[in-house]
Amino acid sequence: MSQTDETGSDGRREDLVSDTERRAPAPSRRALLSWGGAGLALGAAAAGGAVAMARTADEVPAAVSGEAVEFHGPHQAGIATPVQDRLHFAAFDVKTEDRAELIALLKEWTEAARRMTAGRAVGEGAYGGLPEAPPDDTGEALGLKPSRLTLTIGFGPSLFGRFGLADRRPDALVDLPKFPGDNLDPNRSGGDLCVQACADDPQVAVHAIRNLARIGFGKVVVRWSQLGFGKTSSTTPEAQTPRNLFGFKDGTRNIAGHETDRLRKFVWVGEKDGPAWMTGGSYLVARRIRMHIETWDRTSLQEQEDIFGRDKREGAPVGKAKEHDEPFLKAMKPDAHVRLAHPDSNNGATILRRGYSFTDGTDGLGRLDAGLFFLAYQRDPRTGFIPIQRSLVADALNEYIQHVGSAVFAIPPGVRDKDDWWGRSLFSEEA
Amino acid sequence: MSQTDETGSDGRREDLVSDTERRAPAPSRRALLSWGGAGLALGAAAAGGAVAMARTADEVPAAVSGEAVEFHGPHQAGIATPVQDRLHFAAFDVKTEDRAELIALLKEWTEAARRMTAGRAVGEGAYGGLPEAPPDDTGEALGLKPSRLTLTIGFGPSLFGRFGLADRRPDALVDLPKFPGDNLDPNRSGGDLCVQACADDPQVAVHAIRNLARIGFGKVVVRWSQLGFGKTSSTTPEAQTPRNLFGFKDGTRNIAGHETDRLRKFVWVGEKDGPAWMTGGSYLVARRIRMHIETWDRTSLQEQEDIFGRDKREGAPVGKAKEHDEPFLKAMKPDAHVRLAHPDSNNGATILRRGYSFTDGTDGLGRLDAGLFFLAYQRDPRTGFIPIQRSLVADALNEYIQHVGSAVFAIPPGVRDKDDWWGRSLFSEEA
Repeated sequence: MSQTDETGSDGRREDLVSDTERRAPAPSRRALLSWGGAGLALGAAAAGGAVAMARTADEVPAAVSGEAVEFHGPHQAGIATPVQDRLHFAAFDVKTEDRAELIALLKEWTEAARRMTAGRAVGEGAYGGLPEAPPDDTGEALGLKPSRLTLTIGFGPSLFGRFGLADRRPDALVDLPKFPGDNLDPNRSGGDLCVQACADDPQVAVHAIRNLARIGFGKVVVRWSQLGFGKTSSTTPEAQTPRNLFGFKDGTRNIAGHETDRLRKFVWVGEKDGPAWMTGGSYLVARRIRMHIETWDRTSLQEQEDIFGRDKREGAPVGKAKEHDEPFLKAMKPDAHVRLAHPDSNNGATILRRGYSFTDGTDGLGRLDAGLFFLAYQRDPRTGFIPIQRSLVADALNEYIQHVGSAVFAIPPGVRDKDDWWGRSLFSEEA
Repeated sequence: MSQTDETGSDGRREDLVSDTERRAPAPSRRALLSWGGAGLALGAAAAGGAVAMARTADEVPAAVSGEAVEFHGPHQAGIATPVQDRLHFAAFDVKTEDRAELIALLKEWTEAARRMTAGRAVGEGAYGGLPEAPPDDTGEALGLKPSRLTLTIGFGPSLFGRFGLADRRPDALVDLPKFPGDNLDPNRSGGDLCVQACADDPQVAVHAIRNLARIGFGKVVVRWSQLGFGKTSSTTPEAQTPRNLFGFKDGTRNIAGHETDRLRKFVWVGEKDGPAWMTGGSYLVARRIRMHIETWDRTSLQEQEDIFGRDKREGAPVGKAKEHDEPFLKAMKPDAHVRLAHPDSNNGATILRRGYSFTDGTDGLGRLDAGLFFLAYQRDPRTGFIPIQRSLVADALNEYIQHVGSAVFAIPPGVRDKDDWWGRSLFSEEA
């Protein structure tokens, strides 16, 4: 030990990121007013050194790289939040059969998530006490900015067969049907729990997932995980629409974080939807979509544009000049992607997309194992992803893509204050 | 086609990134003077719309995110260049047996690299002409900044058994010996060619590798590739030293981009070293090092610090207060990593490290497939990586890591001007 002189009398080290805490944003006056206006009660909101004030659903913080995103609120962050640049997503299998142990883990995870999203290390000190013990935090994010980290938890269908939860499974949490063309790898599908970590710095996202897995050692195990290097959708329409690995702008008409009415209509579970514990929550469909980019790259520009129903340069729908012009669907080929995915072709079905491009090295044939890790949030998959995906069975794009992983999760409502925890409404009797 | 009205009379589209070109940095007066002082001839340097002026070895551009890094120079960029945030590395097997075809590809790659590193699309127009043809550029980086992209090519030992190159293989390009503990996967090792793409935006790095692979279709095939999400070394000592996935600062005493003397002594191949075609080049050792982070995370802080020979918080060597204090090796345990890797334990052997953390999902046992993609540049592996790695056979860290991939490449000198190309000195008779 070279640093004993810097260790406090209780054997604890200073929290290295205390300067980060001091930088944690205070709630704006408008946020407080909005809370009042929404008629929601505010609990004691001071957590540790940081002022942890729940934000209203109507107020999505500006996308400023490096800042912290508020963890508390009626909805989980990471859904309507402006999409961060990078993703680390993990699905977990629950190994323990002890309900109390699972609940204790969810509480411990919540506290760790609360700290990490604020840019702080896990545990009371960065090294959690005695040199004879493993550190509370693995350390690789020390000194990095909060990077707009959000952590979003979900519960998979398989969880509800256990822990006395059978009668609490939402009707909307259906097992996804098999779609034509699916080539699903069970090792990249399903999971009892999921955590979506989004941040502008991938090291911050990876650190978060790794520390949750570490905390869960012996109780949960990572079933599969996915790193995403580039966002493919935006929830801030004023920003430049990102391009997918086919080189096209996609998600032009995505639901924006400020569109309260569309969020309420298409994303958040309402009080009358049931079950009560899901009010304010959502449903996540995750699909690992392999893109055959080598084949695509040998396709003519004309064919690429016909397939998407947009021009490649501007992103304008066929026959229109600008990306955000309303598409005239009948001008597109009947099997054009935009036409088939459009709400008008699916009885209004609309989802909030939050996917990321991935590349995971090379397959055995020298092709890049690359594609889209598709993430979609919706109020009900039966009126969201499922009808849209059924419509896309005819998609001309299917020649160039294949779905190789799939999962669906119930996303519980947000953690309201420092005494709340991930899954409380599910596991508590009151809800 | 929705955009015919915007297509020029020759059927070409405007280059979407022409505004990026206009932003390409002009050479500084000092750079021009330095070139003159070094006695190197300047060729006509205007390439396309961008002024492409070679920089001197002594002048490393400041690390400003978003800018372009000059492609031309006596050394390839991507070595002494301030380390960018993200990596996409690819090793290729050459499939053609036709020397002329390989040379033509290297020329085509050079032109594409020249354009992409300047923030421009591949090809004369972003879509390369007729709608009936595949686009010249795959499009996913359109609108993104140059992001300090560098592309660095290397030639593997296996290349020299072919194309009449046997007598041009450098003595220093040895096959690496097998080290105790190595568990090398042939599918993640070797390669006739390599390209290291570094950028602050991973989408820019992935785009570059993908387009080079596309251009090489039928002549080369990707043998393996690796995405790196976080740099683990810095060549700008004033910057914060990054942390590896064990949470430690590593590479504190790395060679800095401005240390001309150390670069000349340890990194660049000198005129007297031979062969002549390698003058100004270097040698790259790439090792995929799996880190058993789950085991590490259950190790006490004291043991972690003993193993590295540094404290975790500050990065100070054992017994010292500050990260950059000169280590007192005898204060460390005999098997401490810093002690065994230090030049004083290896007859002065010094390498320039440029590695990245990776995570590639999960292995079959629920553990993150994560670690360090180690990249080291040196003047000669026989006096650089090999003696250091032999010394590290006793490293206490070996309980927590395993080398699972390995490759070595001769890195030719830089591309000097717009008429030069990657590998000219190797394939031309004059050199």
